[in-house]
Amino acid sequence: MTEDELVARIRERLRGVPDERILVGIGDDAAVWQPSRTNRSVITTDALVEGVHFDRALMSARDAGWRALASNLSDAAAMGARPVLATIALGFPPDTDPEWLLDAYDGIAELATRARCAVAGGDLTRAPAITFAITVVGEVRASNLKTRAGARPGDVVAVTGSLGASRAGLFVAKERPDPANDPAAANALAAFRTPQPRLREGRWLGASRSVRAMMDLSDGLSTDLARLCAASGCGAVVENVPVHPSARRIAELAGGDADPERWALDGGEDFELLVAIEKRAFAHLASRFRAHTGRELLRVGRITEEAGLRREDGAGIVASGWDHLR
Amino acid sequence: MTEDELVARIRERLRGVPDERILVGIGDDAAVWQPSRTNRSVITTDALVEGVHFDRALMSARDAGWRALASNLSDAAAMGARPVLATIALGFPPDTDPEWLLDAYDGIAELATRARCAVAGGDLTRAPAITFAITVVGEVRASNLKTRAGARPGDVVAVTGSLGASRAGLFVAKERPDPANDPAAANALAAFRTPQPRLREGRWLGASRSVRAMMDLSDGLSTDLARLCAASGCGAVVENVPVHPSARRIAELAGGDADPERWALDGGEDFELLVAIEKRAFAHLASRFRAHTGRELLRVGRITEEAGLRREDGAGIVASGWDHLR
Repeated sequence: MTEDELVARIRERLRGVPDERILVGIGDDAAVWQPSRTNRSVITTDALVEGVHFDRALMSARDAGWRALASNLSDAAAMGARPVLATIALGFPPDTDPEWLLDAYDGIAELATRARCAVAGGDLTRAPAITFAITVVGEVRASNLKTRAGARPGDVVAVTGSLGASRAGLFVAKERPDPANDPAAANALAAFRTPQPRLREGRWLGASRSVRAMMDLSDGLSTDLARLCAASGCGAVVENVPVHPSARRIAELAGGDADPERWALDGGEDFELLVAIEKRAFAHLASRFRAHTGRELLRVGRITEEAGLRREDGAGIVASGWDHLR
Repeated sequence: MTEDELVARIRERLRGVPDERILVGIGDDAAVWQPSRTNRSVITTDALVEGVHFDRALMSARDAGWRALASNLSDAAAMGARPVLATIALGFPPDTDPEWLLDAYDGIAELATRARCAVAGGDLTRAPAITFAITVVGEVRASNLKTRAGARPGDVVAVTGSLGASRAGLFVAKERPDPANDPAAANALAAFRTPQPRLREGRWLGASRSVRAMMDLSDGLSTDLARLCAASGCGAVVENVPVHPSARRIAELAGGDADPERWALDGGEDFELLVAIEKRAFAHLASRFRAHTGRELLRVGRITEEAGLRREDGAGIVASGWDHLR
């Protein structure tokens, strides 16, 4: 199969993904779109590398494609933005089955369609490992844009869902503990393989004046909350780590050293949103959030003037989530 | 060095790169910019992989960074657009010297500054080989946008400069022929290592009504002209392949099988622009182009109704430039 033939087949796989706002799509030197007039555009890039972020033995091609796009969509959600388009640079070794690549594009197309995000172009290249480098452009009304900076002492720290299921899913995929057919195993595997970027939640939270800072949890709560605090020039006390029930159950089944709270704190890739919310607005916001999204806004702790992350008892929390250079 | 420390050092290296239009830059979940109201935005992604597109033995870190950005800027130029911002996903093996990476960012910063293109963010990750996946967003007035489609039978096919110097530079870097200190060797090496994206030329040609189709020559004239013809639903006769004087000289020094015309036709990575121009406008346009840019618009051939690429004598030309799947 030549490059041009593979591009043609990829275009087929992406048929059905919305592209109304794309003036020039896949196949030219660059994609072209029409930005809306009152909005800000956001752009985010994330790479997914075989052997680093995923393993073909643990994940189907479709799931790998889904996951590669999900982490970028999650970054757009974390700004309060609506994704508009994605570009995909795909690297792969010479012996890669083109069907694997096309199946990966099916996963990308499925999530892109759900997220109403166009796939506007990309690049194909040889590489020593399968590598998805995806860029997503999103748009957000200027007044709804949220960044990591803006949290203030006293703010409530909350997340859009309980944590650790993705890490538990990795454990299940790798260790295949008995009984792997426990419903918790299926839930955890789904969280690991096809994470749901919190797009609707991100836009809703972006529209609230009481939300002062927002980011997504890709590298683990301990690492990402430290980053939000650093960007906001403050610290935080972690009162409670909301552990996903599937993570608890898998750890129980696994026995031994498995610690579901550590999975929740350091595991990463849950792609829930982490927010700092004005204290007096929290209870009301959480109830409106529940009514609007059907999900819980879970209180994790509070922002402090003093830098660093601590437990309620004063014990320090080391940022021991994912560091790509470790 | 941790990931956050490396990000901080990269930000330092990028100081001085313009960022006036960036509302949120490196360090948040996504970059944010304000698109101008009357313009179209274009987006392009290109990956550069060690061992595939570059070799650390043949190219400095600075040159590798420059080159990775250059190929994306060239794609923006090919749309008639002005680059606005770039994002960079950088993958690298665990044993990579961080200084190599920072030097690569120096090359990126140097070219980004010249091109007045902000570096708005990116991603760092482990990977089995050094991989730059760069996305560039550009803007162009709607009426100046050029694509590969639009060429019509009778149009003149032209390029913004002679070809084959980059391929000759690769030959020099690899084979180090005697005398490598010939001025042609230095020219060819520069064309190979620090190619100049034709940004000014692209914007000028984009503004001309007589330019009907445009693309950049990244994979070789034989491959890229075939793509322009396919997108335009036509074919072309190649009357003349403008061979770069340095490529001729290096081939002469090399002796043997080195064929400078094949380097010009198939070598790729010259990053000159390929245009289809209304026939009756060509002579006048070429003289205005010369006056404005100081460069020559070199006639290569003409667009034909019949599909495919042929020589003047009717012999077929096989698209034998770079195919990333070969």
